[in-house]
Amino acid sequence: MLELFDLVGSNDLRFSPFCWRTKAVLAYKKIPYTNIPVRYMDKEKIAFSGQGAVPVIRDNGAAIHDSWTIAGYLEDKQPEPRIFPGLGLKEACRFFNRYIDSTLNPSVARVILNDLYASVDPGDRDYFRTTREQRLGMTFDEVAARKEEFRAQMHAALADLEATLAEQAYFFGLLTYADCCAFGSLKWATVVSQEALFDKTPGLRAWWDRLQQQLGL
Amino acid sequence: MLELFDLVGSNDLRFSPFCWRTKAVLAYKKIPYTNIPVRYMDKEKIAFSGQGAVPVIRDNGAAIHDSWTIAGYLEDKQPEPRIFPGLGLKEACRFFNRYIDSTLNPSVARVILNDLYASVDPGDRDYFRTTREQRLGMTFDEVAARKEEFRAQMHAALADLEATLAEQAYFFGLLTYADCCAFGSLKWATVVSQEALFDKTPGLRAWWDRLQQQLGL
Repeated sequence: MLELFDLVGSNDLRFSPFCWRTKAVLAYKKIPYTNIPVRYMDKEKIAFSGQGAVPVIRDNGAAIHDSWTIAGYLEDKQPEPRIFPGLGLKEACRFFNRYIDSTLNPSVARVILNDLYASVDPGDRDYFRTTREQRLGMTFDEVAARKEEFRAQMHAALADLEATLAEQAYFFGLLTYADCCAFGSLKWATVVSQEALFDKTPGLRAWWDRLQQQLGL
Repeated sequence: MLELFDLVGSNDLRFSPFCWRTKAVLAYKKIPYTNIPVRYMDKEKIAFSGQGAVPVIRDNGAAIHDSWTIAGYLEDKQPEPRIFPGLGLKEACRFFNRYIDSTLNPSVARVILNDLYASVDPGDRDYFRTTREQRLGMTFDEVAARKEEFRAQMHAALADLEATLAEQAYFFGLLTYADCCAFGSLKWATVVSQEALFDKTPGLRAWWDRLQQQLGL
């Protein structure tokens, strides 16, 4: 059976937005799999993949890493239902995937940072703090001091998603991997934090409820 | 013949990113049209459209405004070559259109603001300054004082476009209205300013050269 190596925090919490993308695809395609939890400090568990980041899948002896590459692999392995259901949509999803990485994720991360830290396995916390402070270019205290500013930026990013969903049921009209990408980010935020995400975005909330039900996640 | 009401600055300069989107579609579809220049202070010229912003087109007695709505109208009027060439691509373009409006355009505007001001018709400059200071939430002097910070933000936005084009020839793999949207913003920046946009983005530069040649613009 296909194996998914999935980031785990304290109390078995699963919070990686990238792992959630892969789990969304597996759920949508109804592909059975074994879930193998991995902490940040467990990198030897995924050493067979030749690198140190999850998600990784192992399937029939093949090791595939990077959520985008995994999405393509799963689409080839089991085409229906399609996550790239037409001409140009894989390429449009590649753009959307990058947009989520560079715009939505950083804006959410700064707001839920302390919640994320609390969700990380205690043995992973030093690693988490060091790498995140480096990535954000500021200390956790500096991030916390500017929380209102960062919250406004997050709501601006969510408003862009809302504006699109006000006019159509999915980001590209029909369900595609773009929805899996946005799903991963919102799952990440909602499993670790009580931060209100949907108060100003009823269209996004409706999409979120619908997608969770559709994927059973 | 179809009439396009097109924003004009000093020395007959055309710089509106939204008007350039419409001109890109007209050029791609080879639809002949009459170009009617409009200054910000000439709003009575487009009063027939029931609102005050360009682009506006008048065609067989119909008045259509808003570049997104115009794109849909032109696709219906003359389907080939298509700017929404497949299932889901119109909806994906709606998202991309909004992304350009909310991410790329503001980041470019802050960097080229003084060049834009200089390009506006002298009679429009007070209007331009007042509305832009309101939109940006700061004075032109405050924007100028933070130019290096804003330039870094603009290069981050361009880097996202670059990363997508490093892997495919157009934003969605094949030419769509998404390319017309990005084209509008880069045309806007390059006709008014000498700011270097492509030094760090060879893929974007290649796309830009190719698209200008393809559209003849």
